Amino acid sequence: MSWMLSDGAYSQIGARAHTTETVITRLMGDALADPAMLSLAAGFTDNGLLPLETIQASMARLSGAFGQEVLQYGRNEGRPGLRRAAVELLRSYPGEADLGLDEADVLITNGSQQGLYLLMQALCDAGDIVLVEEPTYFVFLELLRGLGIEAVSIPALADGAMDPDGLADLLADLGGEGRLARVKAIYLMGTFANPSTRCIGEATKQALATVLQRCGRRIPVIEDMAYRELYFSEPDPARSLLALPEWADWPVIYAGTFTKPFATGLKVGFLASRESALLKTLARIKGHQDFGTAHLNQALLEEALQSGAYAAHLRRIRPRYEEKCALLEDALRAHGLERMGWRWDSPKGGLLLWVRGPAWLDTRLGGPLHAACLYSKVLYVPGDLCFASSPPTHLVRLSFGALHASLIPQAAQRFCEAAASLSPASLAPD
Amino acid sequence: MSWMLSDGAYSQIGARAHTTETVITRLMGDALADPAMLSLAAGFTDNGLLPLETIQASMARLSGAFGQEVLQYGRNEGRPGLRRAAVELLRSYPGEADLGLDEADVLITNGSQQGLYLLMQALCDAGDIVLVEEPTYFVFLELLRGLGIEAVSIPALADGAMDPDGLADLLADLGGEGRLARVKAIYLMGTFANPSTRCIGEATKQALATVLQRCGRRIPVIEDMAYRELYFSEPDPARSLLALPEWADWPVIYAGTFTKPFATGLKVGFLASRESALLKTLARIKGHQDFGTAHLNQALLEEALQSGAYAAHLRRIRPRYEEKCALLEDALRAHGLERMGWRWDSPKGGLLLWVRGPAWLDTRLGGPLHAACLYSKVLYVPGDLCFASSPPTHLVRLSFGALHASLIPQAAQRFCEAAASLSPASLAPD
Repeated sequence: MSWMLSDGAYSQIGARAHTTETVITRLMGDALADPAMLSLAAGFTDNGLLPLETIQASMARLSGAFGQEVLQYGRNEGRPGLRRAAVELLRSYPGEADLGLDEADVLITNGSQQGLYLLMQALCDAGDIVLVEEPTYFVFLELLRGLGIEAVSIPALADGAMDPDGLADLLADLGGEGRLARVKAIYLMGTFANPSTRCIGEATKQALATVLQRCGRRIPVIEDMAYRELYFSEPDPARSLLALPEWADWPVIYAGTFTKPFATGLKVGFLASRESALLKTLARIKGHQDFGTAHLNQALLEEALQSGAYAAHLRRIRPRYEEKCALLEDALRAHGLERMGWRWDSPKGGLLLWVRGPAWLDTRLGGPLHAACLYSKVLYVPGDLCFASSPPTHLVRLSFGALHASLIPQAAQRFCEAAASLSPASLAPD
Repeated sequence: MSWMLSDGAYSQIGARAHTTETVITRLMGDALADPAMLSLAAGFTDNGLLPLETIQASMARLSGAFGQEVLQYGRNEGRPGLRRAAVELLRSYPGEADLGLDEADVLITNGSQQGLYLLMQALCDAGDIVLVEEPTYFVFLELLRGLGIEAVSIPALADGAMDPDGLADLLADLGGEGRLARVKAIYLMGTFANPSTRCIGEATKQALATVLQRCGRRIPVIEDMAYRELYFSEPDPARSLLALPEWADWPVIYAGTFTKPFATGLKVGFLASRESALLKTLARIKGHQDFGTAHLNQALLEEALQSGAYAAHLRRIRPRYEEKCALLEDALRAHGLERMGWRWDSPKGGLLLWVRGPAWLDTRLGGPLHAACLYSKVLYVPGDLCFASSPPTHLVRLSFGALHASLIPQAAQRFCEAAASLSPASLAPD
């Protein structure tokens, strides 16, 4: 019956979304099409590590101090107690105790994803530019395309690290083209970035501040820290931009989440910023979208944070993800991926492995590795999807998050077999 | 610190939201400023009637058939079981058993509010026109302003009823002005409308179809049924547009909610439509915003619907809201509001009373009735806020939803005293 509403009935946003299948949808379709398929693509957490009993216990305790109003509407900006808890979470990181934020500087959102969407709505019109890392979070690139915003990559160093000089050159180039005024935000992933698993060091963060202060425009910087709590053994030592004196006078917005490391099905994130007028603006747009994040979910998290159940759960799962990461790395090595010329850096947190194939390889959807992996019944995310432009085509994002630990070696073996089926190296004597 | 980001840093959407305080925020500020204030303004349900134990029991039962994956990400479009439950809910209404919809025709949203927002994003660009009733849901008018969409009222009959001839005249006028092509949607509240508490009868719905079929443009119609389940003793007899043969060939989108009548703090609504391409488009935009509504909340509702706990709760609360409505009406009469020339129609469902003062009265924010009510410590929603243009200024929306039943008579008395302090009639012999 889709003939009823003509294509011309859609808005610009509607028309862009009307014609673009998301990559996630395609990958999920592949996953659902064959139950024997093993997915190293899904960036999900592990079902077996989700805290259902913990949350049931929190739920049972809500009758007392919280009361029935947890089932009532809340406020656009979120529960005061949960906003305070967000500040406490930030202040708990080494060197950030004197952050100088309070609950008024926090907006609760439907996952950090909604925070990113609201920021883009508030800051950008169609045709504006947002600077991103290369590689960057591919769903953010889809979000930008949906709103008609152009993503421009900050050139990285040869080893993939953030390059302040590259940012300076890019800003100068954009200025020379008369496009600097259209740059409305810079999007960085500070910790265990998706997909690169990199953290941006403090010295780099300081150098970035200097570059921006010289560029002549106060471009807001979004620091996405969605993976920050998912460290394996130690938090990343770099402080957040909010805590660095070099950034004290710059518009910075921190995007965080309570639920990525805990229970994604609760979907509660937050933005923290000293830009109080911006936060109010975001809360008003959020008011039009949903009147505030589901109040029950906020209360459940507030209870779990207060009672210590939240922290206890994270202590329990961190070593498990470290083990799963090691399982994946060990199996990839055991099945010869390094011998075939593949390389990766071992992450210190997160759910991902960012793997570089031989330069001649084509990992794109529909390409030879993708076909070989579908034949071997294993899924990955092609690395080219994580680049705003001129993507290299020999990169792969693998996730050890969702797949049960017992299946990771088999999935890795399938991936290596698929890689071997394409690799001249596999035919050569070792 | 709000000086850090200049006003020029905002997008068009951001700039509109930046400068506009919402009415709800202002009213909530009034409510919070004085704990002795009694609010007949908040369109909330009754805290005392919220089903915390029911939901705790559903939560406890999730371990079994549902499992830990309720804490995992779901899909953009929602849980299949809950989408089926939405179809079953619609089919449960008299005369709608053969609706011819299935789960693919449903999108789960963060309350029906997000459904409305997504629809406006998908269908309208800034400068487009949406036709609304007079009066209409004032948060929808704010949503439209936020997106830069113009709301144009369909003239009502003298008694306030929807007027198909008025729609025909309006469409002809817009055509004459060359603006018909900018009309991208029509927004109707089918049942116990906010604020008028009216239902649109089937004959009127049929006549509206005829008018639209003659206008030369396939303008999608949104039927907001958020209050439908909150009937007092019987469902409204008019079938939904989705069920009427006259509308079978027209793009219709039904906006519903599971949580308004049950537990607003769970915030789960849905859209239902035969426009499958439109629903896919909305799901993609939703994917950019939040990857789908919180999975746990969907599972809790699915459990409560399946186990019968949902229906049992609604059977329990409907008579309570009918009693609260009667309490408010009786107290308004007892304190002389009718004698002062005020009139209203007794609703058969919902949470609201739509009250017409004498024609000379000014009920607007900051006007004499508002000042008198603040002095008497009672809040209401000024009726002018519910009109897209040329608002009458003698109307008031009162809610019996949120206030505890024991306080309704006192709130009504305060309102009547405030009205009497302005009314020449109160000085005249009866």
